[in-house]
Amino acid sequence: MATKLIKNAVGRMVPDKINGQKVTPYKGVGKYRPTGRKFAPKIASCADYPLDGNKLVPTLKKALIKAGLKDGMTISTHHHFRNGDLVANMIFKIAHEMGIKDLVWFPSASFPCQEGMIEYMKAGTIHHIEGSMNGPLGKFASQGKMKGVGVLRSHGGRYQAVQDGEVQIDIAVIAAPTADPFGNANGVNGSSACGLLGFALADSQYADKVIVVTDNLVPFPCIPWQIHGNYIDYVVKIDQVGIPEKIVSGTTQITKSPDRLHIAELTAQFCEEAELIKDGFSFQAGAGGTALSIGIYFGEIMRRKGIKAAFARGGSNKYLVDMLEEGLVGYILDGQTFDLDGVRSMRDNPRHVNTSPFTSYNYHGKGNFAGILDIVILGATEVDVNFNANVVTHSDGYLLHGIGGWQNCLFGKNVILPIPLFRDRIPVIRDEVTTICGPGELIDIIVTERGIAINPLRKDLIKKMKNSKLPIKTIQELKEEAERICGKPKAIEFEEKIIAAIKWVDGTVIDVVKKVKE
Amino acid sequence: MATKLIKNAVGRMVPDKINGQKVTPYKGVGKYRPTGRKFAPKIASCADYPLDGNKLVPTLKKALIKAGLKDGMTISTHHHFRNGDLVANMIFKIAHEMGIKDLVWFPSASFPCQEGMIEYMKAGTIHHIEGSMNGPLGKFASQGKMKGVGVLRSHGGRYQAVQDGEVQIDIAVIAAPTADPFGNANGVNGSSACGLLGFALADSQYADKVIVVTDNLVPFPCIPWQIHGNYIDYVVKIDQVGIPEKIVSGTTQITKSPDRLHIAELTAQFCEEAELIKDGFSFQAGAGGTALSIGIYFGEIMRRKGIKAAFARGGSNKYLVDMLEEGLVGYILDGQTFDLDGVRSMRDNPRHVNTSPFTSYNYHGKGNFAGILDIVILGATEVDVNFNANVVTHSDGYLLHGIGGWQNCLFGKNVILPIPLFRDRIPVIRDEVTTICGPGELIDIIVTERGIAINPLRKDLIKKMKNSKLPIKTIQELKEEAERICGKPKAIEFEEKIIAAIKWVDGTVIDVVKKVKE
Repeated sequence: MATKLIKNAVGRMVPDKINGQKVTPYKGVGKYRPTGRKFAPKIASCADYPLDGNKLVPTLKKALIKAGLKDGMTISTHHHFRNGDLVANMIFKIAHEMGIKDLVWFPSASFPCQEGMIEYMKAGTIHHIEGSMNGPLGKFASQGKMKGVGVLRSHGGRYQAVQDGEVQIDIAVIAAPTADPFGNANGVNGSSACGLLGFALADSQYADKVIVVTDNLVPFPCIPWQIHGNYIDYVVKIDQVGIPEKIVSGTTQITKSPDRLHIAELTAQFCEEAELIKDGFSFQAGAGGTALSIGIYFGEIMRRKGIKAAFARGGSNKYLVDMLEEGLVGYILDGQTFDLDGVRSMRDNPRHVNTSPFTSYNYHGKGNFAGILDIVILGATEVDVNFNANVVTHSDGYLLHGIGGWQNCLFGKNVILPIPLFRDRIPVIRDEVTTICGPGELIDIIVTERGIAINPLRKDLIKKMKNSKLPIKTIQELKEEAERICGKPKAIEFEEKIIAAIKWVDGTVIDVVKKVKE
Repeated sequence: MATKLIKNAVGRMVPDKINGQKVTPYKGVGKYRPTGRKFAPKIASCADYPLDGNKLVPTLKKALIKAGLKDGMTISTHHHFRNGDLVANMIFKIAHEMGIKDLVWFPSASFPCQEGMIEYMKAGTIHHIEGSMNGPLGKFASQGKMKGVGVLRSHGGRYQAVQDGEVQIDIAVIAAPTADPFGNANGVNGSSACGLLGFALADSQYADKVIVVTDNLVPFPCIPWQIHGNYIDYVVKIDQVGIPEKIVSGTTQITKSPDRLHIAELTAQFCEEAELIKDGFSFQAGAGGTALSIGIYFGEIMRRKGIKAAFARGGSNKYLVDMLEEGLVGYILDGQTFDLDGVRSMRDNPRHVNTSPFTSYNYHGKGNFAGILDIVILGATEVDVNFNANVVTHSDGYLLHGIGGWQNCLFGKNVILPIPLFRDRIPVIRDEVTTICGPGELIDIIVTERGIAINPLRKDLIKKMKNSKLPIKTIQELKEEAERICGKPKAIEFEEKIIAAIKWVDGTVIDVVKKVKE
């Protein structure tokens, strides 16, 4: 049957099928209720695994063959090595050499270091990518060159999709900085240490076959066992799983841009005046330059007021680790470590806790902790006058970013987007965003260098800030100010071809990305 | 259809149905291969849980009502509080007062402190117990007074049964020494600290509704989160979940019996002479008086030889913790802490690792670590001349013990049963055991105060010990020696009524227990 387009709850036309699979249009926050049961993996038996626990296989190729690699399979990887990953490319190089076709690559995110996948997509080895497509892979998709439709999910949405059986992983390959022959693995030890392996948790739990690849094989037991060997089929030792300096940059920098610093300061002042920073509060600041600066301002406010945060949500870096060690935050609940201080702290400090998309973000669980956070600082490429926001496409229409945990974090109590009013003389606040990634009702405050807009739904905040000296404006005022300076942005020209779908946290389709007319 | 009796692979007649549910007779070690899929719990949605993470309900009764408590449900509890548990009784008292009938109680083990359940069984509130029945509850069952048939499983078998959907838990109640309002819970903190909550892992993952009950409610995040709040429906704060001095006795004592000490010494000597104690080896000693003494002998041998163990498997106590702190063992992989030193060590020492039946024992996983252990010390109530052993019934026929992890541990590389040749002048080594809990092919060495028998299957060990001065004998010789002293044991008189089934680690039925003729 032909694909039908249906208008969803944010007014976007989305297809009823993607890559031949039936999908549900977005129905609104909390409106779609799942009725089925979780995906049920096959029951294994210890009788089929070596009794002495030694699951070593000599090469990745042999492991892939043992796992039954064949045309059309879904192969998953994780992105804890970020732009230093070496393993994803290896997998598809092997598949390509074996003449395998039409694989679905299901990474937790993809990075520019995986640009080589374009060759495998052109050759037919990879049919399409289900997952974030940062940089060159996104551009390739936006040019309409990918065979299938890309599917972008948040970190929590990826867990949800695997748990619910929307994506069935045939073979998961988990690159691990340290592992034992039984398959227990962690990210805190070894020369490729990346901190944790939470993005691979769903893959380990639900994939049919699971391969652990490591460059640091240790005797059983590999402790901590962030990934349990009880889920693992094969273990492979290779020379190198990642390039350490690209895994942890060690160069996370506070912004030096006066505009960005101003935005950071306004954000912190807003939070203080609105009394969001109080003893026992919690926050997620993020790792970008502006966000880092906001975290530092938060630290100053806490010291001045003599209060502490119950916990902070990471992505962690040395600044957040300093705050933990100073006692300003009780715990770091961390999804990924961005530098070596983060890795060290997670390894050594029991208050620096490794989390997974299951604990933090999965919307199809019995709650998750995203909603517990008091202050959540996020970014956006565009925001519209209804506070809907975009994080995946640029204002030129190209798909250049993944969703990350962004959608999941929108459930925090006070969601703040500190963003510049324009980028490269293109307004960031617009009548309509190119792609809706998150509905405006979940976004509370927009902070720009020229003013702060509070979502009209947040009457409590508007009342509280009534007498503030901060530049509180309406979002329309901010939009008009941007347009006065930069002019009204030109509409992007798209073709009809859908090149990617954006899933909401519950698996429904909130928007699509179309091929850019070049 | 009527229940049929079928002879299984160890020659025992077992039924094809238990409590109306079809079962598979034991087929031999590793012979039964599961073909289905794991149990698939319903997909939940965060939309149905409080966004701020607060799942508190005022009373256990209200939580049970919210969870939909009704006739015929299966209700699970864990036994980390051992004989100090207060919560299981509360649940069935409430159910009894509400007039609920025919519940199945599915504890990970039951203890004498739960003797009160007899009243609820008599009243029809509880239909039967699926789980270990120690002491009075076992006696009640053995007298044929329980309405349904009891089902005894090992710790690993319990995980397997839940994972595979053989037992579907309607409501799990997880008593926790510490928890937060989101349902994250641990056993290392609080006045009822029991170390860990691993026996409740399967319950949290697979039960339809899960209630956490705690007497130490802390603000989110409860770290470590041994049980994830993402699996929890309701949280209840009560005054007391357990009696601390009965949870951890603090009085684990080395045996003072000269016979037992002799057995311990012989066991250690055997292990040394057979070169089982070598650098990087692993062992599980257990917590009984004899086992404790064996552990201490192991420590002496390691110190003398200047070697260390890669890891020891707990049940932990101060003696094992001392060995960890001394550096004699690299890690303790612990299933339950038996004293306050164990609790403290698990809380503070990252090398003291909490495990669950999933990681350690589940036979329907992709391996488990029971098979990795070099030396496993276990007990038995009876052993037969084919090395088959019994741990659940006494030689008077009464069901008085649970299986614990015993069956699971049989997969270790060298399984040793240090046992007295007779107890109360009744021989322990016999022509046939009353109840077969483990097949003889997995049991390697029997050590008694009057001699050591090596399983004829272990030609390697027999060869290695050929010139030993230790009293190596055949198991027939040991049996005859016991009978010379005590006389041939009298056969027990049973009625035909099956009162309990003994499951093997793969869910098949290895034996049954019948009603004792009184």
